[in-house]
Amino acid sequence: MTLTIAELARALDARLWGEGSLIVNGAAEAGQAREDQIALATTPAYAEKLAPGGMALLAEGADPEALGLRAAILVGRPRLAMAGLTRAFDPGPGIAPGIHASAVIDPTAELPQDAAIGPFVVIGARVRIGAGARIASHVSIGADTVIGRDALIHAGVRIAHGVTIGDRVILNPGVSLGADGFSFVTPEKSGVEEIRQSLGERSEIRQQHWTRIHSLGGLEIGDDVEIGANSTVDRGTIRATRIGRGTKIDNLVQVGHNCVVGEDCLLCGLVGIAGSARIGNRVVLGGQVGVSDNIFVGDDVIAGGATKIFTNAPAGRVLLGSPAVKMETHVEAQKNIRRLPRLYAQVAELRETVKKLLDKGGVE
Amino acid sequence: MTLTIAELARALDARLWGEGSLIVNGAAEAGQAREDQIALATTPAYAEKLAPGGMALLAEGADPEALGLRAAILVGRPRLAMAGLTRAFDPGPGIAPGIHASAVIDPTAELPQDAAIGPFVVIGARVRIGAGARIASHVSIGADTVIGRDALIHAGVRIAHGVTIGDRVILNPGVSLGADGFSFVTPEKSGVEEIRQSLGERSEIRQQHWTRIHSLGGLEIGDDVEIGANSTVDRGTIRATRIGRGTKIDNLVQVGHNCVVGEDCLLCGLVGIAGSARIGNRVVLGGQVGVSDNIFVGDDVIAGGATKIFTNAPAGRVLLGSPAVKMETHVEAQKNIRRLPRLYAQVAELRETVKKLLDKGGVE
Amino acid sequence: MTLTIAELARALDARLWGEGSLIVNGAAEAGQAREDQIALATTPAYAEKLAPGGMALLAEGADPEALGLRAAILVGRPRLAMAGLTRAFDPGPGIAPGIHASAVIDPTAELPQDAAIGPFVVIGARVRIGAGARIASHVSIGADTVIGRDALIHAGVRIAHGVTIGDRVILNPGVSLGADGFSFVTPEKSGVEEIRQSLGERSEIRQQHWTRIHSLGGLEIGDDVEIGANSTVDRGTIRATRIGRGTKIDNLVQVGHNCVVGEDCLLCGLVGIAGSARIGNRVVLGGQVGVSDNIFVGDDVIAGGATKIFTNAPAGRVLLGSPAVKMETHVEAQKNIRRLPRLYAQVAELRETVKKLLDKGGVE
Repeated sequence: MTLTIAELARALDARLWGEGSLIVNGAAEAGQAREDQIALATTPAYAEKLAPGGMALLAEGADPEALGLRAAILVGRPRLAMAGLTRAFDPGPGIAPGIHASAVIDPTAELPQDAAIGPFVVIGARVRIGAGARIASHVSIGADTVIGRDALIHAGVRIAHGVTIGDRVILNPGVSLGADGFSFVTPEKSGVEEIRQSLGERSEIRQQHWTRIHSLGGLEIGDDVEIGANSTVDRGTIRATRIGRGTKIDNLVQVGHNCVVGEDCLLCGLVGIAGSARIGNRVVLGGQVGVSDNIFVGDDVIAGGATKIFTNAPAGRVLLGSPAVKMETHVEAQKNIRRLPRLYAQVAELRETVKKLLDKGGVE
Repeated sequence: MTLTIAELARALDARLWGEGSLIVNGAAEAGQAREDQIALATTPAYAEKLAPGGMALLAEGADPEALGLRAAILVGRPRLAMAGLTRAFDPGPGIAPGIHASAVIDPTAELPQDAAIGPFVVIGARVRIGAGARIASHVSIGADTVIGRDALIHAGVRIAHGVTIGDRVILNPGVSLGADGFSFVTPEKSGVEEIRQSLGERSEIRQQHWTRIHSLGGLEIGDDVEIGANSTVDRGTIRATRIGRGTKIDNLVQVGHNCVVGEDCLLCGLVGIAGSARIGNRVVLGGQVGVSDNIFVGDDVIAGGATKIFTNAPAGRVLLGSPAVKMETHVEAQKNIRRLPRLYAQVAELRETVKKLLDKGGVE
Repeated sequence: MTLTIAELARALDARLWGEGSLIVNGAAEAGQAREDQIALATTPAYAEKLAPGGMALLAEGADPEALGLRAAILVGRPRLAMAGLTRAFDPGPGIAPGIHASAVIDPTAELPQDAAIGPFVVIGARVRIGAGARIASHVSIGADTVIGRDALIHAGVRIAHGVTIGDRVILNPGVSLGADGFSFVTPEKSGVEEIRQSLGERSEIRQQHWTRIHSLGGLEIGDDVEIGANSTVDRGTIRATRIGRGTKIDNLVQVGHNCVVGEDCLLCGLVGIAGSARIGNRVVLGGQVGVSDNIFVGDDVIAGGATKIFTNAPAGRVLLGSPAVKMETHVEAQKNIRRLPRLYAQVAELRETVKKLLDKGGVE
């Protein structure tokens, strides 16, 4: 992870200024960087904190000379440069090469020559894993699961049987993939079924014992998907649950059985997607967003934090609130609620005035 | 898992039509079924997708002959038939019989002869487990815990000491049972205690260090309970936390210390039930529902997704919204909020008109 | 855990009444206590259930003689006494002393002489752990992590590399500390960036592939912090994520990358704090509260259950609702919404009356 600032600039496809031969051993915030670290100062506020004589990552337009730097990398889109820069200095998860002696691997499983598999990993029958896999300690992988190239599976991940996972997938600690869906049925029509039809009226309340509908469907995870710590994605009932290529899922997110999530989505922390919902491509769901079962959220929908989506959402819509409405509608509704005290006062005053008008002039 | 369609019809207690000797090797959605799979087509929309010459599960009233099928099973309540059908073809979790050599089992633990216990399982002192137990890899079970017959415990489940679990319980991956409750106290009255009494007013703000109240109570899980992946149910402080018989809990659900959840309830994903709340029988809480501490939710309450229940809820009520109100009240309130722009316009117009009336006729 | 009631009273710094030599073997609720257990009866309702002839914990002002007790401990602040009482009888997590033979410990790790380390624990290179550590089964600790004195780490906890943890920290089962943050960037400006600037308007919708910004920052957990089962705290991007001394975190809580949480806070179940948010000292967030990214929540803020905080919150404020507002404002707004049907009726009546006035006297 040691390189010259000229090499780093080249890796970021960015412009170098100053002494290209300086050695960079890491990155730090402006004002916190050691002599061998590049300081991040892509906003004027951070640039002010720079110590003279050092190295910095600056936004195009900044003046490294005026800032007294010895060298600088200038970038047009700082957030994007952060991706390259942090990748360059990430030591990685430190999983030792080879298969740890304690791992329990079914003889019919096919592992790549270059696999790095940590202690206490369990891999089931007929599992197939692609080249470059790094699997940390305490992971379990059920029978017949297939995993693509360059997987990074962190400690304690639980993958059930018959799950299909693409290339370059990252699973953070404690993820559960392919557990049985939450699907139960009562012998008679249940209270929930009834109020869904009657919109709230219930003819009678009766005993209801729940019987499991087993989950025979699989789970398919596309290429370049990442799933956050302790998140859960259940398998389908008959068809597979699916997470599309390039979708990124944060921590503690629940994706129910039969759901189909599109490509390049972002699902933030504590999002819950109920069973059989379909989510389009490039959808962004903020933290704690909820999506009801069996509905459709169109391509490019963006839902702000804590939005609760109960009905189909057309493509491209920006949603807020509970129940979710268009962002403008939500903002307007909140304003209208905040203004209510004035409205109540105005109506009271009107009533008073009209009463006086009546007393004076009279209607009938 | 191979049986004739006549045997399958008998297992589902349903009507057979056509060639009973056809072999069924599995189930698939209509239009996706291989020749040896039964197609699921219990709605007209699915029935349209059926390929002629195959087998199908149909709703009573459909016409298998007109659909060109070779055989069919006709059912009165399709969702219920799905329970039997999926059970028939579920290969199960694939836990090898016997006790894996790597398992660490206290010599005082009592395990059944027929136990299937996976790699890296840890079972503590004096644990007692009933016949038919299947325990997947990486499970830990604390001392003095008692588990009934036919338990199915998936990988990475954490069961603390002194937990009591009934028969036929299913615990999905990563479940935590019997961790210490979230119960802390400050030497002086805390800000939270104060505003609960004063409803928002705080006389002064002071330092507050939190001291743990330890959880000496246990946790009791009834027969036929199922708990979803990465859900957490804490032990009680003095008395036990309790989950009633037949209750089903989805993924990422939190049930706090001292809670008593009744029988045959459904708690959907990301539900949170705060400490010492009591939930009746047959209660259904939709995804992301919240229940405040120390309150009571009556029998047969149904709360829609994201409902937040802050106060006691009488039996049988259908709830929505935050704060939770009766479904009708919530729907009416939403409608009233949506109509506010018109109301504001009407009041503005009224004010204008009344002003003119005043100008003309005058109230002094 | 057997002591006389006089010893127990002394340990609680409380007043003893009656026979101090009685042996106490545990505690139970009033009406449930065995002869050798102290009954908890700190409210009149519980005191009524006391069986005569036993021992009880009472609130100052109660009359043990009138209740027919043989001995009692009288306390000024019962909840605080519960902390001492439950600590006295907590048998602890039962982790056997010494290092279990199955644990995989890097030779460069420094463990204390008195460590209790359970089966299947994995400890990485250069890890340093202080005296008194108790580490249950299936825990993994990444390279270069440092843990203070008297840690209690329950089963299945995942600690990544380079995490710094203070003294007396308690981590409940399944906690994930130091996983990579949810930080991604698109080559072009993404839809989310755009609507944050334009407040809802999007000029065009385009493809967006997400590239990871790696998390090079660490995670620092202060002294006396406790974290609940299956909660997740991510590492920072460049600087460290920080949880301040004395803060207690409940189950299934998500704290994002770069967050700074102050001292002596309480974060209840299913709270989500998005990346780079800063939370002051002594902040209390009720269950399912959400905090947006990059905002500031001041010291001593208390947010009721399910409050969603989208903007900076000044110190000392009591918040409710979504979006979060002052508690009084929220209560008032709810009241105003409930009263809307009457307002609509009043305005309709006014319109009718004014129309009649107009018809009669006329404004042109």
